[in-house]
Amino acid sequence: MSKSAGCCKRFLHYAFDYETPKTLVIPSLGVGFVFRFTQFLVVMYVVGYVCVVQKAYQDTDTVISTVTTKVKGFAFTNTSDTEPRFWDVADYIIPPQSDHSFFVLTNMVVTPKQVQSHCPELPSPSTTCVDDCNCVEGRSDPRGNGIQTGLCENYSTTARTCEVLSWCPLEIDTKLPEHALLVAAENFTVLIKNSITYPKFNFHRRNILPHVNSSYLKRCEFSRLTDPHCPIFRLKHIVSEAGEDFQDMAVKGGVLGILIDWSCDLDWWAGECLPKYSFRRLDNKHPVNNVAPGYNFRFAKYYKAADGEETRTLIKAYGIRFDVIVFGTAGRFSIVPTIVNLGAALSFLSLVRREMKNSGFYLSSIYKTLTSKSINVSKDGE
Amino acid sequence: MSKSAGCCKRFLHYAFDYETPKTLVIPSLGVGFVFRFTQFLVVMYVVGYVCVVQKAYQDTDTVISTVTTKVKGFAFTNTSDTEPRFWDVADYIIPPQSDHSFFVLTNMVVTPKQVQSHCPELPSPSTTCVDDCNCVEGRSDPRGNGIQTGLCENYSTTARTCEVLSWCPLEIDTKLPEHALLVAAENFTVLIKNSITYPKFNFHRRNILPHVNSSYLKRCEFSRLTDPHCPIFRLKHIVSEAGEDFQDMAVKGGVLGILIDWSCDLDWWAGECLPKYSFRRLDNKHPVNNVAPGYNFRFAKYYKAADGEETRTLIKAYGIRFDVIVFGTAGRFSIVPTIVNLGAALSFLSLVRREMKNSGFYLSSIYKTLTSKSINVSKDGE
Amino acid sequence: MSKSAGCCKRFLHYAFDYETPKTLVIPSLGVGFVFRFTQFLVVMYVVGYVCVVQKAYQDTDTVISTVTTKVKGFAFTNTSDTEPRFWDVADYIIPPQSDHSFFVLTNMVVTPKQVQSHCPELPSPSTTCVDDCNCVEGRSDPRGNGIQTGLCENYSTTARTCEVLSWCPLEIDTKLPEHALLVAAENFTVLIKNSITYPKFNFHRRNILPHVNSSYLKRCEFSRLTDPHCPIFRLKHIVSEAGEDFQDMAVKGGVLGILIDWSCDLDWWAGECLPKYSFRRLDNKHPVNNVAPGYNFRFAKYYKAADGEETRTLIKAYGIRFDVIVFGTAGRFSIVPTIVNLGAALSFLSLVRREMKNSGFYLSSIYKTLTSKSINVSKDGE
Repeated sequence: MSKSAGCCKRFLHYAFDYETPKTLVIPSLGVGFVFRFTQFLVVMYVVGYVCVVQKAYQDTDTVISTVTTKVKGFAFTNTSDTEPRFWDVADYIIPPQSDHSFFVLTNMVVTPKQVQSHCPELPSPSTTCVDDCNCVEGRSDPRGNGIQTGLCENYSTTARTCEVLSWCPLEIDTKLPEHALLVAAENFTVLIKNSITYPKFNFHRRNILPHVNSSYLKRCEFSRLTDPHCPIFRLKHIVSEAGEDFQDMAVKGGVLGILIDWSCDLDWWAGECLPKYSFRRLDNKHPVNNVAPGYNFRFAKYYKAADGEETRTLIKAYGIRFDVIVFGTAGRFSIVPTIVNLGAALSFLSLVRREMKNSGFYLSSIYKTLTSKSINVSKDGE
Repeated sequence: MSKSAGCCKRFLHYAFDYETPKTLVIPSLGVGFVFRFTQFLVVMYVVGYVCVVQKAYQDTDTVISTVTTKVKGFAFTNTSDTEPRFWDVADYIIPPQSDHSFFVLTNMVVTPKQVQSHCPELPSPSTTCVDDCNCVEGRSDPRGNGIQTGLCENYSTTARTCEVLSWCPLEIDTKLPEHALLVAAENFTVLIKNSITYPKFNFHRRNILPHVNSSYLKRCEFSRLTDPHCPIFRLKHIVSEAGEDFQDMAVKGGVLGILIDWSCDLDWWAGECLPKYSFRRLDNKHPVNNVAPGYNFRFAKYYKAADGEETRTLIKAYGIRFDVIVFGTAGRFSIVPTIVNLGAALSFLSLVRREMKNSGFYLSSIYKTLTSKSINVSKDGE
Repeated sequence: MSKSAGCCKRFLHYAFDYETPKTLVIPSLGVGFVFRFTQFLVVMYVVGYVCVVQKAYQDTDTVISTVTTKVKGFAFTNTSDTEPRFWDVADYIIPPQSDHSFFVLTNMVVTPKQVQSHCPELPSPSTTCVDDCNCVEGRSDPRGNGIQTGLCENYSTTARTCEVLSWCPLEIDTKLPEHALLVAAENFTVLIKNSITYPKFNFHRRNILPHVNSSYLKRCEFSRLTDPHCPIFRLKHIVSEAGEDFQDMAVKGGVLGILIDWSCDLDWWAGECLPKYSFRRLDNKHPVNNVAPGYNFRFAKYYKAADGEETRTLIKAYGIRFDVIVFGTAGRFSIVPTIVNLGAALSFLSLVRREMKNSGFYLSSIYKTLTSKSINVSKDGE
C-alpha cells in the first residue's frame, strides 16, 4: 500500500466511519415495563406540561400600550356647608387630561379668598402662645402653615397663637365632610380606549373589538357576565368589583387600579386575543402602618382683583385616582425556544433515567448474572 | 485479601473506575456520509441560527426610560367664528408639562362666560317639551347637560325644551369648525430628550448622541434619510411618517405614537446602541366600530367677577396627543444562556439523530448481517 | 410456534425489551480521577453558578406598580426682582397631581399682565430694523416671538425692532435669577407611596412595610444608613445622593430619577422582598452636545378684567422633575426552568466531556492496547 493511499484511507476512515454504541437487548418483561413506563412519563411531561401548560415552545413579547379615558356625568351638590353647585367633567377631572390615569374629585375642603397676608396660626401645642416672646420672627415650623412674624395674636376668644405670613385665611382641613360631597360620582361612566402593540410580532389590537358596532358602544356598560367587552365602565361598578364601597372610598379618596391583561396566545386565531379586565384597590384601606391615608392633593384657582391683587381659592381635593394598568405577555411559536425546551427536558429526563438505572438497578449485570448466557448484540439480526 | 483492603479496593473501584460505552466502528462510506451530513446540519443550525440570528448566547434586560419634551412654535388665528388671537406654547400645550406625552391643541369649541344658572336644554327628542308637565324636577338625563328644574322654556322661536340647572349658556359642540383652528400647528417642532437605562448592565444612554454638537442641535430637524439622530421633530413630519394627514387629524384630534426602539446588542461597541424612531397612529381613524372618534377633552378657565361671582370659559379641546413610547431589549453575552441554549440545541439534535438512526436504519445490525465478520471495538487499535 | 403467538412475541419483544449500551469498566486510577474531576466541575458549575448565582431554577415576572407622591413644605421669597411672596404646595407643584412624577418649581421668569396686542420684538440680528421696509407683514420667524406687523418701532432709545403681534409685553427670559428663587425647596419633603404587584405570582406589596407603625412614619426621614425603609425623602438628600448640588440644579432645573428596585427572590420568606432606593440625575448636566439644558416649561395663569379683556401671567418655570421609576423582576421556583436549565447545563457539559474524551484520549482503545486482556462488561458481576 502506497503512503498516499494509506493516508487517504486513514482520512476517509476518520471522516466517514460510523461509530455507534454496542447495545444489549434484555428480553425481560419486568425490566422492559419499567423502561417503557419511564419513557411514558417523559413523554407525558413533555407533551402535557411543557407544551400544553407552560407553552414552552413559544417566543414571548411584552405589551406596549396607550390609553385614553373619557369620563361622562354631572352632579349637583347642595349641602349645608357649601353653596349649591353644578359639577361637570371640566370641574371634577383634574388635570383635564392625562395618560393611563384619571382623577375624579369626590370630596373637598375649599378655602376661598386667600390672599398673601398675616394671620394667626391654627391652634396646636406648638403654635399657642401667651405673648410675643413665644413666637420667633422668621421661624417656620414644618408642621405649621407659614413663617412666623414674631407676634402673638388672638385666634379665637379662647386661644392665642403665633401670627404667620401665609396665604390667609388658613385652610382648616379637619372640617372634611363626613359624607362625600360628590356622592353622585358613583354613577359617572368612563370610556377607556386602549390600543396595544406587541412589537416583536407586529401585532396591534384595540380593546374596542372588531365585531362590536357603534350602536352597541353607545348604550353598553361593562359587566363581567353580560358585557365583558364593553369599554364603558360605571365608576360604582369598578369600585365594587374591587371589593370596596364607593361611598366609603369617596370620603378620603384612594387609588383604584383598572388592570387590563392582554396575555395572548398568538398561535391560535388572533381574534381570540381579548383583554381581561380586573379591578383592585392599590392603596391601603384601614392600615395600622399608614400615613396620610386615602388620596388627596391641593391645588388652587388664581384670580386677580380689579386692583391687581392676586387671590386664590385653595382646594384640598379628595378623590379616587383610577390607574389604568395594562400588562401582558404574548407568545407565538418559535423554533429556538421549542428546541431549547424540548431538548433540555428530554435530555434532562434521559439523564435522570440513565443515572437511576445505572446506580439503582444495574440491570444489565443482574440480568447477565441471572441468565449467564451470551447476549446477542441485537435479536433483530437473527 | 483482608476485609478492609477489599472494602478500600471496592471503594476505589466505585469512585475511580472509568466507564465508557463500547462502540462499533462501521467503515462504510454511505453510512458515514449520512452521519457526517447530519452533524453538519446540527453545526449549521447552532452556529447560524441560534448564535447569529437569535443571539441565544445573551442575557437580556428591558429598558427603563425618561422623556422630556419641549414644543416650539406660535400661531395666529383669525376665522369668522372667533376673535383674532395669537397662540403660544402656554396656550396650546395642555397640561403644560407631563412625562412621556404632550397634547397639542388644534381645534376647539369655546363656550365663554358660563355661570351656574338655569337655561333651556339643547333640543333633542328627549328634551323637547310642550309644557311643564313634560319636565320632571330633579331628573338628570345622562345624555343631557344638567338637572331639570321642571319648567319648559323657549329654546328658540321654534323649539321649547326643559330648563336645566347647569353651567349656562350650554356648550353647543356640534359647531366644531370643519377646518382645524390651529392649522399652523403642523409647523411646530418638538424637542424630545430621552435618557435610558439598562439596570442589569449598568448601561446609560441619551437620544442626544455623544458625537452631536450644540450648533447642529440648534438647526437640525429629524429626517429618516438625512438627520436620523436629530431629536427635533416637526409635527407635520411625524404625522405624515405615520401615514396620516395633519389637516385631517387636526380637526377631530387623535393619538399619535412616537416609538423609540432602543433594542441593542451590547456585545459590540456600545456606540452602536442607537435609538430607532418610528411613528404610528394609535387610535382608530375611520372605524365602523367606534365611539367618540378622535381625541378631545374638556377643561375650563375660571374667572371671578368683581362681585365674587365665578364665571368660566369652557373649552372642548380637540388635538393630537403625542405619546412617546420607549421600548427595547438589550442583550449581552452571558455564560448561562450560552450553555443552556447551546447545550439544549446540541442535545436535542443529537437525540433526534440517534432516534432516527436507531429506529430507521438499524445500521449496526444491517452492517453486521451483511458482513458477518467480527467487529473490532476500535479500528484505531490495530 | 403459531403465527399469532410469534407475532405477539415479536410485539412484546419490541415493546418491552430493554436496551442498554454495553460499557467498558477501566480500573485505572489516573483515568478515573480525570473522569471524576470532570464530574466534580460539572456539579460545581450546576450547583454553584446556575443555582446560586443565576437562580436559573426560577420563573420570573416583571413588576407592575402605582405611585402617589405628596410634597410638604413652604417657602418665603423676597428678592430684589420680585415682590415678597409666600409659596405653598398648591403654588409650586405643577401640575397638582400626576402619577410617577412630580415637578417642584425652583426658579422662574414671570411676565405679568400680558395681553394680546402689538409690541416691538426683542432685539436680535434678525429683528432689528431701520425702517418699515425691513419688516414684512405676516412674517413669522421661528426664533422670534410673534407675527410681524410690518412696522419698525423703537424697542429702546438705542434699538429699533420690527413690531410683532403677540402676547405683550414679551417675555425676556435672559433675566433668569442667578440664584434659584425657591432655594428653600431643598428642605421640602416628599412622601412616596408605592404599591407593586407581580401578577404571575399574585404577590402584592407596598413600600410602607408591615412592621412600620404610624408614629414612626410621622417623624422619620429616609437615610441609607439609619432609615432605609422610611418613605419620606428630603429633596436635598435625594439630589445629593444623586451626586448633585441642589442649589446648582435649582437654577436651571433638571430631571432626577428616584429608582425603586423591587427585585425579589420570592422563594424565601416574602418579608425579605424590600424596595431598594437609588437616585440618579437623568438629564445631562454640563454637556458639550446639549440643547436647552436643564428643565423648564411655560405655563400661564389667565385672568379676565372687568371689561372682559383677557390678561395672563406667563411663567417660565424652572425646576426639578422627580421621576419615580419602579423596576424589578421577581423569581420563584418553577419546575420548567429548573428542568430546562439543569438539563441543558448537564447535557451540554456531558457532551463536552464526551467529545473531549473521544477525540483527545481514546481512553478505551489505549487501555485495551496496553493491557490486551479481555474486558468484562462489568466488574460488579464477579
